Amino acid sequence: MSTSPAPALSPARLLTLRDSYRDGLLQSTLPFWFPRAIDAEQGGFLFSRDRDGSLLDTDKAIWLQGRAVWLLATLYSEVEPRPEWLAWARHGLDFLRRYGFDDDGRMFFLVARDGRPLRKRRYIFSECFMIVALAAWARAAQDAAALDEAVALYQQVLHALRTPGVLPPKWDVETRPMQGLAVPMILTVTAQVLRSSGADAALCRGWIDESIAAIRRDFMHPELAAVLEVVGPQGEFLDHFDGRTLNPGHSIEAAWFILNEARARGDDPALLQTGLTILDWMWEFGWDKQYGGITYFVDVLGKPVQEYWHDMKFWWPQNEAIIATLMAYQLTGDAKYAQMHTQIHDWTYARFPDAEHGEWYGYLHRDGRLSSTIKGNTYKGAFHIPRMELVCWQLCDELLQHGPRRIPHAG
Amino acid sequence: MSTSPAPALSPARLLTLRDSYRDGLLQSTLPFWFPRAIDAEQGGFLFSRDRDGSLLDTDKAIWLQGRAVWLLATLYSEVEPRPEWLAWARHGLDFLRRYGFDDDGRMFFLVARDGRPLRKRRYIFSECFMIVALAAWARAAQDAAALDEAVALYQQVLHALRTPGVLPPKWDVETRPMQGLAVPMILTVTAQVLRSSGADAALCRGWIDESIAAIRRDFMHPELAAVLEVVGPQGEFLDHFDGRTLNPGHSIEAAWFILNEARARGDDPALLQTGLTILDWMWEFGWDKQYGGITYFVDVLGKPVQEYWHDMKFWWPQNEAIIATLMAYQLTGDAKYAQMHTQIHDWTYARFPDAEHGEWYGYLHRDGRLSSTIKGNTYKGAFHIPRMELVCWQLCDELLQHGPRRIPHAG
Repeated sequence: MSTSPAPALSPARLLTLRDSYRDGLLQSTLPFWFPRAIDAEQGGFLFSRDRDGSLLDTDKAIWLQGRAVWLLATLYSEVEPRPEWLAWARHGLDFLRRYGFDDDGRMFFLVARDGRPLRKRRYIFSECFMIVALAAWARAAQDAAALDEAVALYQQVLHALRTPGVLPPKWDVETRPMQGLAVPMILTVTAQVLRSSGADAALCRGWIDESIAAIRRDFMHPELAAVLEVVGPQGEFLDHFDGRTLNPGHSIEAAWFILNEARARGDDPALLQTGLTILDWMWEFGWDKQYGGITYFVDVLGKPVQEYWHDMKFWWPQNEAIIATLMAYQLTGDAKYAQMHTQIHDWTYARFPDAEHGEWYGYLHRDGRLSSTIKGNTYKGAFHIPRMELVCWQLCDELLQHGPRRIPHAG
Repeated sequence: MSTSPAPALSPARLLTLRDSYRDGLLQSTLPFWFPRAIDAEQGGFLFSRDRDGSLLDTDKAIWLQGRAVWLLATLYSEVEPRPEWLAWARHGLDFLRRYGFDDDGRMFFLVARDGRPLRKRRYIFSECFMIVALAAWARAAQDAAALDEAVALYQQVLHALRTPGVLPPKWDVETRPMQGLAVPMILTVTAQVLRSSGADAALCRGWIDESIAAIRRDFMHPELAAVLEVVGPQGEFLDHFDGRTLNPGHSIEAAWFILNEARARGDDPALLQTGLTILDWMWEFGWDKQYGGITYFVDVLGKPVQEYWHDMKFWWPQNEAIIATLMAYQLTGDAKYAQMHTQIHDWTYARFPDAEHGEWYGYLHRDGRLSSTIKGNTYKGAFHIPRMELVCWQLCDELLQHGPRRIPHAG
């Protein structure tokens, strides 16, 4: 057990941090995307943008449409009830309801500007982003029917995952049955959003328990001190490229989902320990000791990774690490996490934000040099950065008011 | 029209080049892969290797199995009839015949070490590499039945491409019908291999004519001075990420397939001009004026590319550019192509070969620094480097004996 005697993040530092998250959200990130991204002619949002905001592509990624609705509705509920935020959320939700679904009830991955389908993938992620969009909307607009819709869609996702044949598999399930960390992760955070939007708390808690149990049982491997991304059905280590490839930013995101669950359950110490363990393990793999920042992919056995962009620094792993370290500090008061937060925050803020046009770059080389000026594409839109800014603004406020909670923990 | 008065590649330089291609093939590339890659226990080849040859993954990519059979059988026919080359080709072909095909006659993309299926993709590339494997084997072993098999499989590929519904599309074909350059390219080179293996020359010529006509009509866009990778069904420019993304190494590969067809048809001047035009256009897009080498992806309108590894230097685009520039010089005697060949050859040979363990690295950063020590994976095996070494060895021999052909050309 280790807690620092004095707060490692001073009130002055916390004030500076709080202002930078709040101002970044309200004066840089949101004004970059809105109202610019709103497609007044054909509905939804146009997120594929170059650094100056100019449009690069008119196709609409369903993930990003759902995430933006979640963001706008959540800001309305948690920051202030600006009518335009609610109207824009409604605008996005209308597009998703109208064009997001295929005839079989599953959702598309990419549609054209006018909503006609372009790609449908084999997973349940589009559906999960639709669920958080519906749930956040339901909370903001006090729309009980939308919350029912969201809960029903969550149950449909569970059915699809548990019923062989509903989702076409990418790999042969007989030769090499596999499961991915992304599934229990998204089921966790999606159920958390449902709960905070007013869905049945016991039902959501059960879903979250199941997903966190799967992460602990199958994906956390103490003998490797790692959280694996892809394992066998009983958590077996798969000694192949995919089975060895760690995604530290992704599992650090899982860490703060679990830390947040500890907070939601009155500082549950077992959940706290799980979240801290994941953060500690994956920081060790992910933090680039030579150049700084969280590396995209690392082989758990130190072998070369097959993915070409393995050593690049993307925006979102840094976002997840900034949240996770600050949340770990807020729960424990441990100076170690304050130090890690300062390290990743300062490294990231010195490189990613675009002072001229607002928002952040998304893609840096290992050493921090810019790889691409793209601000938005099929995967990057109004989500990871504003979510980090909102969560960290709230964490700083809590720390400024109450200090860290100083829950005992192993470390 | 421009031809240089004196040969721009001196006999001394050609001798050095010839020796480096020949010795690279016989003393570095082949000894790295064989017999190491041969899986004596379970058949086929194990190509996923780190720089020192240690095994990284036991999965077997069908593309690479077929390409290796083509290589070994072609070396037997064109270099010398070493019995082990024929035996190893047979070893690979046995594995492909036994485990390569699904029940519907289409081929898998990836199988496990024991041959059980892992992934099947939506394309016809596995089949085309099987065809060249069968054809080269037929030629080497004088196995007429294998040649019939190869021709029948080519006809099956054409049927699959022309019959809606046989290949499951990745994109919605109603919203955005598309065609890719890779298809007429692989149909061209596959028919060339069939012809050189003894298949009906008129039949093969017809297939090649159709494919090159499609490249000229739909993919070459003079108004952009570019060969596009993905276009609409009538060659329409698609102003989206995918439609704008050029792959210069890939279209430079198309250039030398067409230049090679000009050679096969007694120096056909129209084919020569098409090949040179593609090479000139795509060299302009692909050659990195700051750091040298051929860049992976470039946006035809100068916008940012969505693919993360856009500015990396992979081994194979350099291979294709080394072949295309030398072949262009052999056909024209134009000092410009001699200069381009020297430029890309010297840049590549200063960075990619691994003097310690043999063969080449595959993945460099834009500035030439090593990104990964991987020698083989799902996509890199015994193919692009030895093919380049073989073709360029033969071109150097021809140039040493006869000098360039000096066919008149615009340029």
